[in-house]
Amino acid sequence: MQIILLSGGSGQRLWPLSNDIRSKQFIKIFNIANDQHESMLQRTLRQIRNIGENVSITVATSKKQETILKKYIDSDVKISSEPCRKNTFPSIALAASYLHDIQKISLDEIVVVCPVDPYVDDNFFVAFKQLIKHVSDEFPLALMGINPTYPSEKYGYIIPVSTEEVSKVKSFKEKPDCQTAQKYIEVGALWNGGVFAFKIKYVLDKAQKLLGCSSYSELIKKYDSFQSISFDYAIVEHEPNIKVIRYNGEWRDVGTWNTLTEVMDTNHIGKAQVDEACKNLHIVNESDLPIICMGIENAVVAASPEGILISDKVRSAYIKPFVENIHQQIRFAEKSWGSFKVIDIENNSLTIKVILAKNQRMSYQCHRNRSEIWNIIEGIGYTIIDGVKRNVKTGDIIEIPIGCKHTIVAVSDMKIIEVQIGKSINVEDKEIFEFNL
Amino acid sequence: MQIILLSGGSGQRLWPLSNDIRSKQFIKIFNIANDQHESMLQRTLRQIRNIGENVSITVATSKKQETILKKYIDSDVKISSEPCRKNTFPSIALAASYLHDIQKISLDEIVVVCPVDPYVDDNFFVAFKQLIKHVSDEFPLALMGINPTYPSEKYGYIIPVSTEEVSKVKSFKEKPDCQTAQKYIEVGALWNGGVFAFKIKYVLDKAQKLLGCSSYSELIKKYDSFQSISFDYAIVEHEPNIKVIRYNGEWRDVGTWNTLTEVMDTNHIGKAQVDEACKNLHIVNESDLPIICMGIENAVVAASPEGILISDKVRSAYIKPFVENIHQQIRFAEKSWGSFKVIDIENNSLTIKVILAKNQRMSYQCHRNRSEIWNIIEGIGYTIIDGVKRNVKTGDIIEIPIGCKHTIVAVSDMKIIEVQIGKSINVEDKEIFEFNL
Repeated sequence: MQIILLSGGSGQRLWPLSNDIRSKQFIKIFNIANDQHESMLQRTLRQIRNIGENVSITVATSKKQETILKKYIDSDVKISSEPCRKNTFPSIALAASYLHDIQKISLDEIVVVCPVDPYVDDNFFVAFKQLIKHVSDEFPLALMGINPTYPSEKYGYIIPVSTEEVSKVKSFKEKPDCQTAQKYIEVGALWNGGVFAFKIKYVLDKAQKLLGCSSYSELIKKYDSFQSISFDYAIVEHEPNIKVIRYNGEWRDVGTWNTLTEVMDTNHIGKAQVDEACKNLHIVNESDLPIICMGIENAVVAASPEGILISDKVRSAYIKPFVENIHQQIRFAEKSWGSFKVIDIENNSLTIKVILAKNQRMSYQCHRNRSEIWNIIEGIGYTIIDGVKRNVKTGDIIEIPIGCKHTIVAVSDMKIIEVQIGKSINVEDKEIFEFNL
Repeated sequence: MQIILLSGGSGQRLWPLSNDIRSKQFIKIFNIANDQHESMLQRTLRQIRNIGENVSITVATSKKQETILKKYIDSDVKISSEPCRKNTFPSIALAASYLHDIQKISLDEIVVVCPVDPYVDDNFFVAFKQLIKHVSDEFPLALMGINPTYPSEKYGYIIPVSTEEVSKVKSFKEKPDCQTAQKYIEVGALWNGGVFAFKIKYVLDKAQKLLGCSSYSELIKKYDSFQSISFDYAIVEHEPNIKVIRYNGEWRDVGTWNTLTEVMDTNHIGKAQVDEACKNLHIVNESDLPIICMGIENAVVAASPEGILISDKVRSAYIKPFVENIHQQIRFAEKSWGSFKVIDIENNSLTIKVILAKNQRMSYQCHRNRSEIWNIIEGIGYTIIDGVKRNVKTGDIIEIPIGCKHTIVAVSDMKIIEVQIGKSINVEDKEIFEFNL
C-alpha cells in the first residue's frame, strides 16, 4: 500500500510553537516515556508502521518544510516536495507523479491520501486495508468517513446513499450550522476527514485534464502557475461514483490549542511551576525561561522564542488575527542540518545561535549587506572562506567580511554564536554557490 | 530636613521583574506620559522634591544595589551603602553616621526615615514637616501612623494614648488576626508604616550602646558582624516616650503584584495583544517576546529575561516559595555604567549582551577560568588589554584569553555581544585591578 501523508499547515493556530516553517505536526507534545515526547508526525508514522503490512509512505510537503521534515523521518520515508503552497489537489497530483515517475510505482497501484495530523488510534490506519478494497473501475475513488460524535460546524459532511458500513456517496455538504449538521447526522452522514483512496492513474488523468500535464518534471516546472484548489473541490465533488466506508473509532482534529491539549498526556512540558489552585491548565514551555502559574484555570500557556500565549482554552481557537498582527522574522527553526535561534536583535545587527549536527554543513554562501562573525562555542570542524580551508575549534573566531563566500562543516556537533552586522539585515540577502568538499 | 529613604527588598514578590539586584522600586511601572513610565523610586523622589522645602535626601541601600540606584537618582541625592544586608536598625545607624561623619550634618539635625516604596500622594511627604516638630528632648522619637482603611493582618499596629491627631504612643502590636485588628482600630490604632523622625545623635547613641560603635568608619568595618534586626525591634519598642501623628491620606503598600497593579495607570506595558474577553488583566512585558492574551481575567502577566509569571491577582501574594525554587544566575541587570542581559547559556559558555553608556567603562579585570570575546555591534570606544590601548568600533572583535587584564571605555554609547568560554563560568571569577586612564 502506498500512503501519501499531507503535511501542510500555516502554523498560526498553534502559535507561538508553530511558525511558517514549523507547523503543528512537528511540535513534540505527546508523552511517550519519562519526559520524552513525540510530535504528531512521529506519532502518525509510528502508528502506520504498526499496521505491519508492506506500506510505503510518502510525505507531501512544501519545500520550506523539507529540511525540518527530514529531521523527523527515517530514510525509508519519501518526500514529495512542492515548490510552493497550492492546496491539496496540486499537492496530491505532484505526489502521485512523484510515485510513478521517480519511484517507478505502477499506475495501477492504489494510494491512500491522509492528512498527517488526525489524532487517532491505530485502528484508523488498520482500516486503510479495508478502504483500498473498495477502489475499482466502477468506483475509482473511495473515502473513509468519520462517524460524527456531535453536530460540528467545523467539518464537511459526506451524505451516503445508505447507512451501511460501506455505501455509495450521495452528496457532499460544506460546513453546516449546528441544526443542519444534526439533520445530516440523522440520515447517517459522516465527517469528511480528508482520507481518499484511488489508483495513481486516476489522479494523473485528472492532472492532465485540469492542470495540462501529469509528469513529475512538468508539474514541478509549472507548479507556480497552478490555481490553489483543494482535492475536494477539484475532484471529489465532481466524481459521480464514490464509495465511502464508515470509521467508528476515535478521531480528533487537534488543530487548535483547545483540542490539542485534550489529547496531551502531560499537563506541563518544559520549565514550569504551578500552584494547587491551577486547574485544567496546560503549559508547553519551549523557551528557556522558567514559568510560574498561580490560580489559572481552563487555560493554555505556551512559550517559545517566537512569543508567549496565555489563553482561555475555548478562546484559543480565535488566535489567528492576533498572530497576523505580529510582524517579526522567524525567531527559531529546525533544519535538516541542525537549528538556529535568534538571540538578539538590533537595528544594524542580529545575533543568532546555530547548532550544526556532526557531519552537517551550511550552504556555501555570501551576503551583500552584512558581515558575519562566527564565535565557536562548542565542537570542532572546518571552515571554507573564499576557497581556503581552516580547521576550527571551541573558542575560535571566524570573520566573514561582506561579499566573502563562506561555509562551515561540523566534524563533531557544533554550537556557534553568529553575529551579523550590517544595514537592513534579512534572510533574502544570501547568494548560494556550488561547492564540492 | 534630612530624609533617609530605605531602599531594600529582596525582590522575590515581584518576580520576574525584580531580582536580587533589581528590587521592585526600580521597575518602571507608573505612567507619566505617553508610554513613558517611572519607577517607585523615581516617583518618591519626585514627590519629595514637590515639598518645596530645603530637603536633603539620602538613600540607604546595599552595595549590591548601588550601581543600579545611581541610574535612577540625580547627583544631589546621597547614598549610604551597606556592605551587606542587616535589616533596618544597622542600616539606619549607618546612614545617620554617614550624614554626621561624611556629610558633616549636625548631631541636632532631625532626620525622617521612610521606606522608598509606599504608594502615596504628595501630602504624605508634606506631613513630614509636621512630624519633625514633635521630636523633642522629652519625645526623642516621633512616628507617622497610617489611619487604617480595613483590619489588615499584614501590618504592625501603633496603639496611641488618645485618638487625637497627635498623641503619645501607648504600645505596639505585631501583625494581629483580623478580629484583633478590628478591636485595635476601634480604640484608634494606626498602621505602622515605618516612618520615624529623630535627631541624628539619638540614633548614634543607640548605635554606640547596641552595636558598640557609632562612627561611620567603625560601623562599616564591623557591619558584617552585626545582628540583623529591625529598627522597630531594636529601638522603637523599647522607647517609652514616642509621639505619633495620624496620617489620613492615601497610603498603599504595593509590595505584591495584586496591590501593585491596583495603582498602575496602564493595563499593558510592553509588547502585548489582548482580546475583548480579557478583563482586569495587567501585563508588564519587559522581554522582547510578543505576548497574546485571550480570555484571561483577574490576572497579572509579567515577563522579563528572568522568566514568566501568570497569576491570578489574589494568588500572586504567595509567589515567594516558587521563586525560591528557581536556581539560576541573574539574567539581566542595570548598572550605573549600562546594563547586561544573558542571551545564551551552555555548559561551557555564556553569551551576554552588554550596553555601555557613553563615557562609561567596565572595571579593569581578568578571569582565571574563562576567555572572552567581545563582538562590538554598535558604537566606538577603546580597549585596554594588558596595558595596551586600542581604538575599537562596530564590527571589531577583541579576544581576551584567560588571565588577560581587560577593560573597555565607551566613547559613544556601545553595544557588545560578549561570548564567555570556559569551564564553570561564574560571576565570582573576577579579579579587579586599579587602572588610571
